[in-house]
Amino acid sequence: MAENKRGKQSFVLPQMPVITAWASVAGKRESEGPLAHTFDLTSKDTYFGQKSWEQAEKQMQKLALNKLLEKAKLKPSQIGLVYSGDLLNQCIGSSFTLRNTGIPHLGLYGACSTMAESLVAASMAVCGGFADKVVAMTSSHFASSERQYRFPLGYGGQRTPTAQWTVTGSGAALLCSAGIGPRIDSCTIGTVTDLGIKDANNMGAAMAPAAYATIKAHLADMHRAPEDFDLIVTGDLGQLGKELLMELARRDGIYLGGRLADCGTMVFDNTVQDVHSGGSGCGCSAITLCGELLGKLQKGKLRHILFCGTGALLSPTSTQQGLPIPGVCHAVSIIGGCN
Amino acid sequence: MAENKRGKQSFVLPQMPVITAWASVAGKRESEGPLAHTFDLTSKDTYFGQKSWEQAEKQMQKLALNKLLEKAKLKPSQIGLVYSGDLLNQCIGSSFTLRNTGIPHLGLYGACSTMAESLVAASMAVCGGFADKVVAMTSSHFASSERQYRFPLGYGGQRTPTAQWTVTGSGAALLCSAGIGPRIDSCTIGTVTDLGIKDANNMGAAMAPAAYATIKAHLADMHRAPEDFDLIVTGDLGQLGKELLMELARRDGIYLGGRLADCGTMVFDNTVQDVHSGGSGCGCSAITLCGELLGKLQKGKLRHILFCGTGALLSPTSTQQGLPIPGVCHAVSIIGGCN
Repeated sequence: MAENKRGKQSFVLPQMPVITAWASVAGKRESEGPLAHTFDLTSKDTYFGQKSWEQAEKQMQKLALNKLLEKAKLKPSQIGLVYSGDLLNQCIGSSFTLRNTGIPHLGLYGACSTMAESLVAASMAVCGGFADKVVAMTSSHFASSERQYRFPLGYGGQRTPTAQWTVTGSGAALLCSAGIGPRIDSCTIGTVTDLGIKDANNMGAAMAPAAYATIKAHLADMHRAPEDFDLIVTGDLGQLGKELLMELARRDGIYLGGRLADCGTMVFDNTVQDVHSGGSGCGCSAITLCGELLGKLQKGKLRHILFCGTGALLSPTSTQQGLPIPGVCHAVSIIGGCN
Repeated sequence: MAENKRGKQSFVLPQMPVITAWASVAGKRESEGPLAHTFDLTSKDTYFGQKSWEQAEKQMQKLALNKLLEKAKLKPSQIGLVYSGDLLNQCIGSSFTLRNTGIPHLGLYGACSTMAESLVAASMAVCGGFADKVVAMTSSHFASSERQYRFPLGYGGQRTPTAQWTVTGSGAALLCSAGIGPRIDSCTIGTVTDLGIKDANNMGAAMAPAAYATIKAHLADMHRAPEDFDLIVTGDLGQLGKELLMELARRDGIYLGGRLADCGTMVFDNTVQDVHSGGSGCGCSAITLCGELLGKLQKGKLRHILFCGTGALLSPTSTQQGLPIPGVCHAVSIIGGCN
């Protein structure tokens, strides 16, 4: 058994799930950035018409799910399963999005790795024949994250140079057993890696070792080299974390060089948007994937990418108790072009 | 495709995953209750030798995982994947348990439904051949939960009659593609159900409609009747929620009667332990399953059970913002006896 397993952490998908549709919703700052033209919906209202930032986050997921259904020409009753999670305590962004929709739901928690984690889980469900038309979805919101993880915005706390800016956005992708679109051929599940970083304002450094461990595991398990990919894209290490990842790889003689991109550095233009080390949050890799990346894979502008969702598994309590920040990274190998 | 799907929410497992080993760790009050003899490890120290209740919860998961490995005669490097989650913000109980173990990890959030959710996810991974030797695990801790969801214990808040007592405990189960032990033949994934209950001290009422919806879906999707099971066991509605579930079923002409049990009412003896409406928390159904229930299935004292993990998907923030409590329930059909 485990006939689809490869190596220690990876598995292949003999019947490759097809990403037949995707949708993204983004906030004001994101809609002023370099990927603005790739989002389906944007809003200048931080509250998305709701009474609280937490409800705004729920609303973004709702908008993303509805847009996805519209693009795929499906009704909620035709969706087999939604895998989703978010950064809010007890993942209320996800559960309040799905309440009374009648759609089966399995909740995930992988911090900012959740978009990749949901694709990994959805791939197993679709390829194994356990469900079809499976949605992978997540979100984050700058204001709800700042309030929960750091300080209330009204406090006016100073941001450190290594801090990242939580993306306000939500992305959703539909995985089907058949259809036209980019296909997932294999996945690598991450291990929780902790090198002792304790600075909650330097999450790129906390996550870079996890990202490198998973990329290395994928290359080994699948007998691949960086050259097999047009792009190895992490989400989201930010500028500093990206440099640390390149250095970790270089020490092992692996040159990621021009092939490496990071959603945190793609989503904002730091020369004019002043986001310090780049974007972060579950929504960061979600809106970059469900727009720019899947769009280019669909059009054949990218042929093969390794999408590596990275998450910092801290909580305010663990930080206050002086504990380090464990990181995790899950990798999804996505093939573009016509099929 | 989706050849293993049944009906709207269920799937069957043609190669039934075998639960070859399980382990449970429990706290002081649990070790004074009716299931005391079924736990592998118990402690009279609420801190489990750690400096905080959050770290105590991590320690319980570590002890449960280590005990599971010992019973299964496996090293950590032989474990293909761990699905786990807990109630702590950002699921730090789970991520800190797994850091630097080298074991691939996918984090889940399903509130108190997490034990069932992890079995559902693990079943797909094992039956689909994506991983083997997969652990499903969760935990909860009375003191860390009270502090996070309600009041600091030192505050001495009064408990309402409908309140449940969060179990201090952790349970872990090992799913393999082959071996001897109880087998999982099918699962039903729940939908997020919300009938407008807003009382965070009455979670049984908030979860009962979700439990009924999933049990009904399992019976319909799998063409089964309550009589096909020795036990339909929810975890954890408590006394009040259990009565509400029976009433909801009765109105549809379904008599669950003597077949229905609830982990929240099994784990404590309310006549002497003063836990009001019964036990709750991810650990409640985890230690009841990974002791009493799997033990009886192994010995053939139970032939077939439907294990229904129920979760209240609230957060303190959603409650403070006046929002209702959505519920979810996932069902796992487990066959006992020799195989």
